[in-house]
Amino acid sequence: LPTNEKNIEKLQEGHFQTIAKCISYVENEMEESASFLEQLKANIKTKCIGITGAPGAGKSTLVNALLQKITDKNQKVAVLSVDPSSPFNFGALLGDRIRMADFYLHPNVYIRSLASRGALGGLHPRMVEIVEVLKASWFDYVIIETVGVGQSEVDVAGIADTTVVVVVPEGGDEVQTLKAGVMEIADVFVVNKADRPTAATFVKNLGALSHSKANAIWEIPVLKTIASQQVGVDELLLAIDAHHEISIHNMDRKQWMLAEKVWKILQANVMQAYSKSQVLQLVKQGLQNGEENAYILVKNFLNK
Amino acid sequence: LPTNEKNIEKLQEGHFQTIAKCISYVENEMEESASFLEQLKANIKTKCIGITGAPGAGKSTLVNALLQKITDKNQKVAVLSVDPSSPFNFGALLGDRIRMADFYLHPNVYIRSLASRGALGGLHPRMVEIVEVLKASWFDYVIIETVGVGQSEVDVAGIADTTVVVVVPEGGDEVQTLKAGVMEIADVFVVNKADRPTAATFVKNLGALSHSKANAIWEIPVLKTIASQQVGVDELLLAIDAHHEISIHNMDRKQWMLAEKVWKILQANVMQAYSKSQVLQLVKQGLQNGEENAYILVKNFLNK
Repeated sequence: LPTNEKNIEKLQEGHFQTIAKCISYVENEMEESASFLEQLKANIKTKCIGITGAPGAGKSTLVNALLQKITDKNQKVAVLSVDPSSPFNFGALLGDRIRMADFYLHPNVYIRSLASRGALGGLHPRMVEIVEVLKASWFDYVIIETVGVGQSEVDVAGIADTTVVVVVPEGGDEVQTLKAGVMEIADVFVVNKADRPTAATFVKNLGALSHSKANAIWEIPVLKTIASQQVGVDELLLAIDAHHEISIHNMDRKQWMLAEKVWKILQANVMQAYSKSQVLQLVKQGLQNGEENAYILVKNFLNK
Repeated sequence: LPTNEKNIEKLQEGHFQTIAKCISYVENEMEESASFLEQLKANIKTKCIGITGAPGAGKSTLVNALLQKITDKNQKVAVLSVDPSSPFNFGALLGDRIRMADFYLHPNVYIRSLASRGALGGLHPRMVEIVEVLKASWFDYVIIETVGVGQSEVDVAGIADTTVVVVVPEGGDEVQTLKAGVMEIADVFVVNKADRPTAATFVKNLGALSHSKANAIWEIPVLKTIASQQVGVDELLLAIDAHHEISIHNMDRKQWMLAEKVWKILQANVMQAYSKSQVLQLVKQGLQNGEENAYILVKNFLNK
């Protein structure tokens, strides 16, 4: 059993098979997974990075470049991929996956692909727990790669210490449209494919926007990369490390993140008393009786 | 009070001031808003359409074109805008808003912009209720315009009868990357800016993908529009009407949508017993005592 002391020791030592077993354990919500999670102690050195951005922005190439830099320094890294189109995800095209084969076999790199499990566009419903497991292990970095579609990128901002938003240079005016949502979750902007002719204006405008939103603690840096040529990746890693250093000392952020987590766990605990099939039954009966008003259905249900 | 009989009559007759008052009422979660919502009866003819897509896809221009067609037929329409960059939203640039002035004053068009209220990228937390109010009024169409960033587009699929996903033609290969999430929520695809040279291949590939995912009830149509020139908008309206006709007779979908709604209302009701400030207090105490494990915090809280 994962709750076994020996097992937790092996998890802390980075034994890949144990890590895989522990993740499957919480992923499938096995019975004792709550008491297992209570035993875990997050490793303070582990930097959890969310990498998000629209399809085609080059997230996977960037993750690949980061793995190269991190392993070059003999550091340890785990990759969780929730992007079904990513080569790090097993749902990907075979050709791409072969290109990644180096890192699949690298002793300092642990890669796991996660289905989104019907939670449309959202992260895996047990993502918080899976990250807890990895944080309790020996990694220097945990990278969550998520596609900027649906809920994933917002959720990831609540889990990662540092959220990197990858964009490709568009016309300078397009910076304006980025503001919706993205500005709130980004800790670092990466303008990938920075060799495109529109890059300079785009970076300038994004930088101005970011500067106008800066606070006393952090101004979102706007970095240029050409991930396919490893250009700008050192600078990205430096920015990630700098942001992590700041964020672990930011008590407001720490409180907010823990409070979000506690709220979700509390909600899951409280709602265990109700089942989705119970609700479906309620709805079926309602429709049969010609009652389609959800508020009345809930009221009657709670009053009975 | 909105629960007043006279008031509900005026809502049903499409009295704009009453509509606005009722929306503000549920938006601000006034005390009796539950009993108000219990009194509403959804108008079966009202078609609720979600329009979603990435920034720059031309959603607002498309909504504008739809408003033109709908009002030409002397039908009634409400627009809810949750996209902060949309000219339908008051957060928008002044220049764009002036361009929309026709419809702001049109007697058959009701426009309301909604803040996302800190729910990062998500819909307004009371969106379900606001749509209920509009459905109980006199509209032929309720259009929800949302930006394809964050949770909004996923949430909207659970509220709208028909979800229209607007995309711009990219290289043919890019269709592959669309699959993540979008395929699951789209009822209709609109390839806008269809006069771009890459459009033909893109539409062909998207059509093939959509065909491969077709079921006995519906195959997602892939429509070409040039919204700025009103091209293809009649066909879009026909597709929306056709999908609505099918979806109101699809009992599985009806059950699923009502069950989702009931679950959310049930959760909100049950969680009323707990407050976010309570959780924040718990977290602050935890951090003071060196207890950062969320599972233990929740366990101790529920046991005390």
